[in-house]
Amino acid sequence: MNTTANRRLPIGVFDSGVGGLTVLKALREALPGEDLIYLGDTARLPYGTKSPASISRYASQATRLLQQRDIKLLVVACNTASAVALDVLREQMQPLPVIGVVEPGASAAVAARPAGRHLVLATEATVRLGAYRRAIELLDPAARVNELACEMLVSLAEEGWHDGAIAEAIVARYVDELGAVAEAADSVILGCTHFPLLRAPIAAAFADSVSVVDSASTTATVAHDLLDSLDLAADRGHPGSVRLLATDGAGRFARVGGWFLGADLAANDVELVDL
Amino acid sequence: MNTTANRRLPIGVFDSGVGGLTVLKALREALPGEDLIYLGDTARLPYGTKSPASISRYASQATRLLQQRDIKLLVVACNTASAVALDVLREQMQPLPVIGVVEPGASAAVAARPAGRHLVLATEATVRLGAYRRAIELLDPAARVNELACEMLVSLAEEGWHDGAIAEAIVARYVDELGAVAEAADSVILGCTHFPLLRAPIAAAFADSVSVVDSASTTATVAHDLLDSLDLAADRGHPGSVRLLATDGAGRFARVGGWFLGADLAANDVELVDL
Repeated sequence: MNTTANRRLPIGVFDSGVGGLTVLKALREALPGEDLIYLGDTARLPYGTKSPASISRYASQATRLLQQRDIKLLVVACNTASAVALDVLREQMQPLPVIGVVEPGASAAVAARPAGRHLVLATEATVRLGAYRRAIELLDPAARVNELACEMLVSLAEEGWHDGAIAEAIVARYVDELGAVAEAADSVILGCTHFPLLRAPIAAAFADSVSVVDSASTTATVAHDLLDSLDLAADRGHPGSVRLLATDGAGRFARVGGWFLGADLAANDVELVDL
Repeated sequence: MNTTANRRLPIGVFDSGVGGLTVLKALREALPGEDLIYLGDTARLPYGTKSPASISRYASQATRLLQQRDIKLLVVACNTASAVALDVLREQMQPLPVIGVVEPGASAAVAARPAGRHLVLATEATVRLGAYRRAIELLDPAARVNELACEMLVSLAEEGWHDGAIAEAIVARYVDELGAVAEAADSVILGCTHFPLLRAPIAAAFADSVSVVDSASTTATVAHDLLDSLDLAADRGHPGSVRLLATDGAGRFARVGGWFLGADLAANDVELVDL
């Protein structure tokens, strides 16, 4: 059984930038009593276009910093890092647990559409690694999976152009590339933490019957259940705290990050750290 | 007087990624007898949204690597690094010369439109530092300068969507933000090396009478004249070579870089280096 001290340790959340704040927001909602430390590696974003070796190295450095802050659980809120580096980070964090966003997203999609035709929208690196495909096929051999790299959606989300004609035209252009595959999709998986901000134009590009799956809330549910099963959930009655760390650009982190977190942030809410 | 050996040393060209290949292309055309070594810091791009301290550190590391390859001139083909780090790099390269892209771009704009109203399209970091504004006002106190950060144009260029309705709509949205300032512009300066690829949709957003200024060819002319005046121009009669170095993702560098260089590249044309 864990001690009270262990249960009161924070949860570490790591992302390449601000996108993972959509996961942080879901964690706050699912686990209001937990302290959360979020680290955005803004100095080296985006991870989505980088090589697996670089992504693994960056993710491992970020994890080391969070380990120094005595976390009890690591949530890898970056799809690309989850796709590339989860095994490495699990080894590094032993015996403490690590959750990525790919497996929760894949199981939410399979639960929503058994034997379904899934379309994964993600970054180049996540698509190249086929992480969602493997996770879905493992859970549901009858599923069919297509993946599409949509880099422009990342900058669209970061620019704050979350709806309107340009967002719709960019989504439509990606979807048009797929033709019949897009038309046949039963579920669309938002395989990048930036994409929940673009849920409206993405949903508009597909039939009403399509399930749009967002891994943020599913990941938070997995974290909740895992802490319970490991007897690591905070048992205090007051709300937990949130600390935000970034490797560069506190002002930009606050401005853009506020959209993702759904709360106003100021530059001095963000602590700059070196990796 | 310089020795033949010195004259035969290569020119180093440094950029945060592939955008500076537009400058490399102009250098090849202006200086066909020179050997060129291009280093794209693709592991850490984009620089445009990073802090000045990080940008200076990255630029200095890149310069050190090019110094180890015995260059005779450094061309900083990245607008952001030129805006932030030129003084630091000049000190580091002493007594060898360093050329950035901001000053040549500014003088081309002033020459095209004396006492003109200039509009600079650039990255967030270049705009934040007001580098073009200062360079232009120094050359022409009667000039008026406005600057606009257009981050989406970077990803648009990297995605290969260089013309058509989406490119035009994105440019129009940025230009609309400026209203009367855009309507009054005499010159539009492409203040990011990615933007020459978007010359068509950018030009389409302004009146026909507007001069569109691209620093790549002006920078190449400055390099040509400087080598002559320092007696450092290569004196051999055969074409110079081009070496491409990148800090990450040779495959992506080749695919995207080919558009910028205006020539097909393969992944094995690109040597991966660590900084």
